[in-house]
Amino acid sequence: MQPPFERRIAACQRRLEDTAADLAVCFPSPNLTYLTGFEETPSERHLLLFVPEHGDPALVAPAMYEDQLSDLPIPALQLRPWTDADDPLEEIATVLEEYALDGSDPATVLVDDRLWATFTQDLRELCPDAEFGLASTALEPLRIRKDDVELDALRRAGAIADRVSLEIRDRGDDLVGTTESELAAEIDRLLAAHGGEEPAFETIVAAGPNGARPHHHSGSRPIEAGDPIVLDFGAFVAADLEGGTGRYPGDQTRTIVVGDPPATYEHVHETVREAQEAAIDAVEPGVEAGAIDRAARSVIEAAGYGDAFVHRTGHGVGLEVHEPPYIVAGNDRELEPGMVFSVEPGIYLDGQFGVRIEDLVVVTDDGAERLNDTPRGWESGR
Amino acid sequence: MQPPFERRIAACQRRLEDTAADLAVCFPSPNLTYLTGFEETPSERHLLLFVPEHGDPALVAPAMYEDQLSDLPIPALQLRPWTDADDPLEEIATVLEEYALDGSDPATVLVDDRLWATFTQDLRELCPDAEFGLASTALEPLRIRKDDVELDALRRAGAIADRVSLEIRDRGDDLVGTTESELAAEIDRLLAAHGGEEPAFETIVAAGPNGARPHHHSGSRPIEAGDPIVLDFGAFVAADLEGGTGRYPGDQTRTIVVGDPPATYEHVHETVREAQEAAIDAVEPGVEAGAIDRAARSVIEAAGYGDAFVHRTGHGVGLEVHEPPYIVAGNDRELEPGMVFSVEPGIYLDGQFGVRIEDLVVVTDDGAERLNDTPRGWESGR
Repeated sequence: MQPPFERRIAACQRRLEDTAADLAVCFPSPNLTYLTGFEETPSERHLLLFVPEHGDPALVAPAMYEDQLSDLPIPALQLRPWTDADDPLEEIATVLEEYALDGSDPATVLVDDRLWATFTQDLRELCPDAEFGLASTALEPLRIRKDDVELDALRRAGAIADRVSLEIRDRGDDLVGTTESELAAEIDRLLAAHGGEEPAFETIVAAGPNGARPHHHSGSRPIEAGDPIVLDFGAFVAADLEGGTGRYPGDQTRTIVVGDPPATYEHVHETVREAQEAAIDAVEPGVEAGAIDRAARSVIEAAGYGDAFVHRTGHGVGLEVHEPPYIVAGNDRELEPGMVFSVEPGIYLDGQFGVRIEDLVVVTDDGAERLNDTPRGWESGR
Repeated sequence: MQPPFERRIAACQRRLEDTAADLAVCFPSPNLTYLTGFEETPSERHLLLFVPEHGDPALVAPAMYEDQLSDLPIPALQLRPWTDADDPLEEIATVLEEYALDGSDPATVLVDDRLWATFTQDLRELCPDAEFGLASTALEPLRIRKDDVELDALRRAGAIADRVSLEIRDRGDDLVGTTESELAAEIDRLLAAHGGEEPAFETIVAAGPNGARPHHHSGSRPIEAGDPIVLDFGAFVAADLEGGTGRYPGDQTRTIVVGDPPATYEHVHETVREAQEAAIDAVEPGVEAGAIDRAARSVIEAAGYGDAFVHRTGHGVGLEVHEPPYIVAGNDRELEPGMVFSVEPGIYLDGQFGVRIEDLVVVTDDGAERLNDTPRGWESGR
């Protein structure tokens, strides 16, 4: 079998053929990591992967990365380094010419969905007659179904999040007096201690009324007895890929309380829990993504909290913590085996508290496999 | 005096007038932070600031941020939230219509230099007849000269890096046996302990031959006696801005040795040091950025190491760790008071070691002010 990155590049080229596009251009982003196993932060220096419909891919990159890039497990990849003394646009123009995309024929160029406008503008100037589209046209259908190596990494990431979730829950009364920030730092420490590479996103600890902000930044509020506490976290783990990098996240949310919760809390928590169960029960191949959102939302609406469920039900996860498929009203994308996404309904009561319960699931041949499995009840210490 | 963010938006609008552009569109990036004091990571959800040539700016943003965004210290800002049940493109179309940019007249739209291609494509579809340019046309001339509040933050960031630099240098023999990663973690801990918000970039500890990679990722190599060690780090500190956020980085490099260095090391180190002095001596208003690069490079070339100085001499710093002015061959941008940039020549000898010495400097009315001032010699413990 071909090594994974060569296989992925070949699949990308077949997609270019199928969609009548001539070239995909990726830049430091999950697309680049997916195709080459190289992970880097975007910067102002031109670092662009060119995958033509036919022929060998080329990587125009700052010479300072040459060392790292010459190790990539893709023998056909042409490395085209440039130094700070060169004009990278000249190197890019040469590559485009070699692919016969120098503007003499109208071409279709798919650029990385995250490509910065400054680089898109450069490409538009070099290919003034080209049609521009997005690389996701070619790559999303590949990335959206996870292979066994990716699923293995996602399962391990789920297990790490679960383990930390249980340890935090078991602390019970000891949580009182801890600030949100302190608890978030402790969660990050535990994620690393159990094998996580780094937090996959900013760990959310949102206590009491702060829980009503879905994307609250953990702050100096000490946890009080009776506070509902939204705990949303996960860590990246490395997939077992030959010679390249690919990191996959965990993402789990539980809402717990130490002591006696507010009067309305139990009903709200139970509603969210039922909504999440209903949504996961609805997962199977052929169902539209929007129907999963509908399944969760109708439970919450029936309980009278429709307006307080202010976000979509979930998002795909893979090399990105948020990626397709989005589990949102109106999304008619049909679920397929190997898709992985979060199911995370919530109810947010301004000035009072919030409740969110989240697990990642994989679509299987006939339903869903949960990647998280810790208690979903609210009582800390149990 | 107007509060800083209102002043900056007004200055941006004057620049739009001067450049005959109709609209600037920013997205989570340093441009957005500069104009609004709001800092957020880019995501797949539409979060776009519209600054028209005339009229009030508008911020189309996911409703989940409403709470945070309604606190921004810009009374004229129209907040246009959308929920996951809405189509954000409809909200954007309404805003464009209000600015009379609905496609009936050809317009010039400047988009954030970091705007993701997926969002640029949305805007192109909504304004099919518009000319597109980059927001830096309007914003770079504003951001490139730092005001007193920004300089104050940069000075504090410099002092934090200096303090950590001295503490590491003073450890002398104790550094031997520590791995690069351990030392990098210790540096990060010290940066935080001395008031840094978080590392401004991945701390570089590159020992022995690893120093020959300018962007080495600190790894498991233990530091040995005689290893030249490149130490490149800095932390962000918050500027003192009313009601908004703006974080400015430190960025300092020293190359030290515990014990006896390789035979050629002293000469190489001295060459880099002289090159850095020559470059900083050349800094004054009216001089071209490329001339600063020339000043450093000619010292290194004269010593016979021209090919081993594989990167530009420096980069501007501000809300971004790398931003204009770039101190690179051919850059004819003239220096102006208030510009801040790194001066960081280096020599990289493959398989042997590397040396880099870096300070940040501010262009003053008649020269340069250094933001870093710790010993630049190589002997650890001294």
